[in-house]
Amino acid sequence: MTDKIALTPKTHTTPPAKFSHGVKKGNILQVAGQVGFLPAEDGKPPTPAGPTLREQTLQTLANVKAILEEGGAGWDDVMMIRVYLTDTAHFAEMNEIYNVYFEEQGLTQPPAARTTVYVGLPAGLLIEIDALAVLG
Amino acid sequence: MTDKIALTPKTHTTPPAKFSHGVKKGNILQVAGQVGFLPAEDGKPPTPAGPTLREQTLQTLANVKAILEEGGAGWDDVMMIRVYLTDTAHFAEMNEIYNVYFEEQGLTQPPAARTTVYVGLPAGLLIEIDALAVLG
Amino acid sequence: MTDKIALTPKTHTTPPAKFSHGVKKGNILQVAGQVGFLPAEDGKPPTPAGPTLREQTLQTLANVKAILEEGGAGWDDVMMIRVYLTDTAHFAEMNEIYNVYFEEQGLTQPPAARTTVYVGLPAGLLIEIDALAVLG
Repeated sequence: MTDKIALTPKTHTTPPAKFSHGVKKGNILQVAGQVGFLPAEDGKPPTPAGPTLREQTLQTLANVKAILEEGGAGWDDVMMIRVYLTDTAHFAEMNEIYNVYFEEQGLTQPPAARTTVYVGLPAGLLIEIDALAVLG
Repeated sequence: MTDKIALTPKTHTTPPAKFSHGVKKGNILQVAGQVGFLPAEDGKPPTPAGPTLREQTLQTLANVKAILEEGGAGWDDVMMIRVYLTDTAHFAEMNEIYNVYFEEQGLTQPPAARTTVYVGLPAGLLIEIDALAVLG
Repeated sequence: MTDKIALTPKTHTTPPAKFSHGVKKGNILQVAGQVGFLPAEDGKPPTPAGPTLREQTLQTLANVKAILEEGGAGWDDVMMIRVYLTDTAHFAEMNEIYNVYFEEQGLTQPPAARTTVYVGLPAGLLIEIDALAVLG
């Protein structure tokens, strides 16, 4: 039996429930829904990077990346990115931020597929992202 | 060619459309979105376990588990759990129920990754859950 | 290292951001969220097949299928279909369209698992669908 490995970067708080920030088993790596929380600090509750879509999007992408890297993977391995926004009016700005971010990542493989839908999120959060990667 | 196998536990009604409650192909098992319907009874329409979040969450988790087991899998094989709630005010209570449930399952592997978002569901339903598992 | 291949059918516009309409790596094929846009025409912005749920559902399914076929796959390979609707009142009609569509596809394998949830979508769009396939 192949082990399922929990991926918990040092930047992340302990999950608030019995789930893992990411798991890897064989060549499949799944990143849990990430939001724009800053790196965890002892004794401080999870705090968003800022109130703006830009701040939260970049922090969320950094949080996803930290989990990928904890599993020995990177953006090039990602097959699917699910983006959850709270407002359709944010789509164009999110795309601008997303495009610049990924241009800067220096991908050597085609970008992941993506679905963007508009949902409710806890108060103050504007974006949530999860990702599925296939390694090797 | 590897066969794709439909997973239809005896507790489940026939799907209301051309989809499977779960499918398995090779080492991948996908569970369709489950809600809190009680085990199917002939001649009776699908009936939620109750109006409360607790009743529906526990029944939904039981329904997911039945499909996993139909495919020879269990919670330890699950990589990703997607939780759909209708109200952000339900998050804390759902987590409590979720944590106790999984503590009682006696997992020997790390818990699955998870994404929770807030969406619309058919009237009377408070939660929907689907799951992706990697076997072996 | 196995290459990740971008799947871009001729019927599709260039993605509006750095994502792929579909990607394939090894035996995993992921289709990005598709909506009911007609086949792309030079110099014309993406245009929905029509305002009705029927027109958009059938076009969306055709768009998913085009990406599957670009990757040498088909509906029989699909494990999971995620359907995003904007209105719970559309569920019954979507199921009717979905069932007839898949009856006409002549599947030789069980149908995919499915999750349907109700979210916000950009103005004028009533449905979005993505899909995960396992090949071979």
